[in-house]
Amino acid sequence: MSRIAYVDGVYRPHREAAVHIEDRGYQFADGVYEVIAVRAGKLVDEALHFTRLHRSLAELRIAGALADAPLKFVMREIVRRNGILNGIVYLQITRGAAPREHAFPKAARPVVVVTARRSRAPDPNLARDGVSVITIPDIRWQRCDIKSVALVANVLGKQQAREAGAYEAWQVDARGRVTEGTSTNAWIVTLDNAVVTRAADSAILNGVTRQALIEIIHREGCRFEERPFTVAEAKSAREAFLTSTTADLLPVVAIDGQPIANGEPGSLSEMLRSAYLTHISESA
Amino acid sequence: MSRIAYVDGVYRPHREAAVHIEDRGYQFADGVYEVIAVRAGKLVDEALHFTRLHRSLAELRIAGALADAPLKFVMREIVRRNGILNGIVYLQITRGAAPREHAFPKAARPVVVVTARRSRAPDPNLARDGVSVITIPDIRWQRCDIKSVALVANVLGKQQAREAGAYEAWQVDARGRVTEGTSTNAWIVTLDNAVVTRAADSAILNGVTRQALIEIIHREGCRFEERPFTVAEAKSAREAFLTSTTADLLPVVAIDGQPIANGEPGSLSEMLRSAYLTHISESA
Repeated sequence: MSRIAYVDGVYRPHREAAVHIEDRGYQFADGVYEVIAVRAGKLVDEALHFTRLHRSLAELRIAGALADAPLKFVMREIVRRNGILNGIVYLQITRGAAPREHAFPKAARPVVVVTARRSRAPDPNLARDGVSVITIPDIRWQRCDIKSVALVANVLGKQQAREAGAYEAWQVDARGRVTEGTSTNAWIVTLDNAVVTRAADSAILNGVTRQALIEIIHREGCRFEERPFTVAEAKSAREAFLTSTTADLLPVVAIDGQPIANGEPGSLSEMLRSAYLTHISESA
Repeated sequence: MSRIAYVDGVYRPHREAAVHIEDRGYQFADGVYEVIAVRAGKLVDEALHFTRLHRSLAELRIAGALADAPLKFVMREIVRRNGILNGIVYLQITRGAAPREHAFPKAARPVVVVTARRSRAPDPNLARDGVSVITIPDIRWQRCDIKSVALVANVLGKQQAREAGAYEAWQVDARGRVTEGTSTNAWIVTLDNAVVTRAADSAILNGVTRQALIEIIHREGCRFEERPFTVAEAKSAREAFLTSTTADLLPVVAIDGQPIANGEPGSLSEMLRSAYLTHISESA
């Protein structure tokens, strides 16, 4: 079965799927995206992704893209045509193609691209053993709440993590406080068992997994604090973990090479991971 | 004559010129670009553009793109095939296409795109009457010295200028100091006739026009100070102006609606503009 992509109204073989060189996504990073998990052929937390997508589009003032109903149809069609049971849908909407000028073009029409792929076989060791992170300065722009494709800083940060043998890089603001990972949200559990994550200010993306997990935390009756934490606080925390659509929830067992607590996944992290996996199997 | 673009080794009709949807320029803004002026069919300050291009590529660790000699050949060929006498060449190099993962892909190969177009008829009023700018907070990432395509903040800033009836938006750092315009460098002339522009730190792009003009300033024996200036200092300056490859040098006669000096282009700005126009006609 050869892969099929949706590009601006047309289903095409993935190999031949292309956008114009004057698409503003390519020349200006003038577009937004979403990555949505597919479980058992169904889209997970689709409503949360759409709410965030609309917010990103509104912040960039990109109007007139495909309406929700046809877009949802396309996403399902791409899942079906690619025979995806478990994997992800990738959706990108840019301001469209126009002769290159920084200001909004008068005549452009948003371009929508949708692809899907099977998940790589998830490495069970990551959840069992936990992962390590490094910390790096957050050099990104000041509107990380917009899920734009201007991701070059995230690329450099993730690469730095890889080269340090770490799973992720936690980015740190000018005041020494963790913002988020390059493609994940960051969490700690304090010594008195409060789950802590930064509030969804303009320095972080409000992850859909983050939002779903906050619901679970409330439902499970855990203590929850939505506030920034410093690198020092994270290193001396009881537990740490990260979340994203593709990583689900993974325990963090070391930061900058320093073990968190006894260097093993924490019990609260494991409970929340388990509850989150139940949530996605039920919501799909 | 229909337009021709160069895309990854092939000359194609501009209308059909496309990159793959998994080109990392499109999905991650993982690429760099240059805009080079063409005068009388020749490329202006080509060596300065190549030096900067190599620096940008090195900072993003994008290796293995077309070597200089074939790239220069392609640029000339694109100028020739499009019959450009006066206009610009646009060059973009991305890390290439690969399945979407933030970290550098192992197998990707850089993709080079080159286009050219005639200059719009330059509006002589802009140089004669001067232009106005607004000031806005600089919300961009902290590596603006890299000429990356992660330009969404610049897009929003330029649009804000347009809607305010201004030519450009001067971006201002957290300490109240002007960094640069969204696609131009910013300059003032002090009351004691020193030409001032910010040093090429990581907050600004080291414009090729900026570099050429600094040479001219030295040659003409003008006083020159390479240092940041505040918005307040700019508003009470004797003169102000901006530079870029596409704008050349334009006098700034108002900032945030407040006239600079008597609200007319300054004499030093006019002398430098004239010297710069001579430079590009001689260097091309």
